[in-house]
Amino acid sequence: MTITITAFKKSFDRGVGLARDMRVRWALEEVGQPYEVRLVPWEKFKEEAHLARNPFGQIPTYEEGDLTLFESGAIVLHIAERFPGLLPKDADARARAITWIFAALGTIEPPIIDRDVVEYMEDGKSWQGERFAMVDERIRGRLDQLVARLGDSEWLDCDFSAADIIMVHVLRRLEGSGILEEYPTLVAYITRATARPAYKRAFAAQLAVWEANKE
Amino acid sequence: MTITITAFKKSFDRGVGLARDMRVRWALEEVGQPYEVRLVPWEKFKEEAHLARNPFGQIPTYEEGDLTLFESGAIVLHIAERFPGLLPKDADARARAITWIFAALGTIEPPIIDRDVVEYMEDGKSWQGERFAMVDERIRGRLDQLVARLGDSEWLDCDFSAADIIMVHVLRRLEGSGILEEYPTLVAYITRATARPAYKRAFAAQLAVWEANKE
Repeated sequence: MTITITAFKKSFDRGVGLARDMRVRWALEEVGQPYEVRLVPWEKFKEEAHLARNPFGQIPTYEEGDLTLFESGAIVLHIAERFPGLLPKDADARARAITWIFAALGTIEPPIIDRDVVEYMEDGKSWQGERFAMVDERIRGRLDQLVARLGDSEWLDCDFSAADIIMVHVLRRLEGSGILEEYPTLVAYITRATARPAYKRAFAAQLAVWEANKE
Repeated sequence: MTITITAFKKSFDRGVGLARDMRVRWALEEVGQPYEVRLVPWEKFKEEAHLARNPFGQIPTYEEGDLTLFESGAIVLHIAERFPGLLPKDADARARAITWIFAALGTIEPPIIDRDVVEYMEDGKSWQGERFAMVDERIRGRLDQLVARLGDSEWLDCDFSAADIIMVHVLRRLEGSGILEEYPTLVAYITRATARPAYKRAFAAQLAVWEANKE
């Protein structure tokens, strides 16, 4: 059955792989599943055809036969449940890996997204500097705790899993902020993950979309 | 095997059921599983015993034998997978319900939490009013889309599921903001959910903790 995902026709990130289709591409590459990509131009996001796939008008979405899913976390979890390789077989270890998917999205990502809100939506506001300082303090608090738990582990919980895909991609959104460089443990973790062949294939695929559509 | 969850010994919400242990209590009541509660006082959140349960020092956590989980979404999903009643049996319907758990936590909850950030962490700042307006616009944008998808459905996707537990609890956090009242569809949805006997038992249990520890 053909798997089709959606991605931005012209991504805001200029091909550096920060849009959330990257998570789904990476997961599909890890489990060795081919997929097709439906590119959605900006003006089509609020149209009925796309809202039928995702009522909040976002990418990525995932279609396979009669099934349509949205939310990158749900899609990556679905791929991990559907194909072997991204979740442990042991039931307890599997539940812990899923907990880390939720932790990446629910605890680490929100202040990082808030930083983008400050950068783009509060640009030019008198308070932008003070808000940056407040948000960065929240981010550092979370990263301190993440590093304390990671210690010298290779991955979040034993073997590489779907949770590492989500966590690494969430952390990558801090690139350019200068914050990641304060955490050598996290830089090493990201470097380890992005050296995986599946990551490289996914990255190249999304970059090719940017190159083909950037004009 | 005994299930033990953690909750605030003295909740910030004064017993109105907005702390996230409420989601886990509600799920456990829906599936008819007894549980014990370990109450954590504020000063113990950053201590090693609690950080071993949740590296980010938050509640709720879930312990069952050798398994320890954190993140309310992961715990509710685990309960729904472990005991019947909170996820459809059909594989596609199950995947859609899980997508709605992620949508509640990843798309609806973040601007609602941001509203709390503005209310409490930016109290007294010159920009608080302007930020409230910006955040409320983001919240309304999401609620408009949610209502458009809900239509006159009883629950998010066919039968009541774990996703409705999370979504209703996320929406309840807007109580007192005046925003919910603009959405009769959502008020009716919350009223329908909170009339469930399992919700009422969970609510009474967390209220009893507040009453016993409020001094």
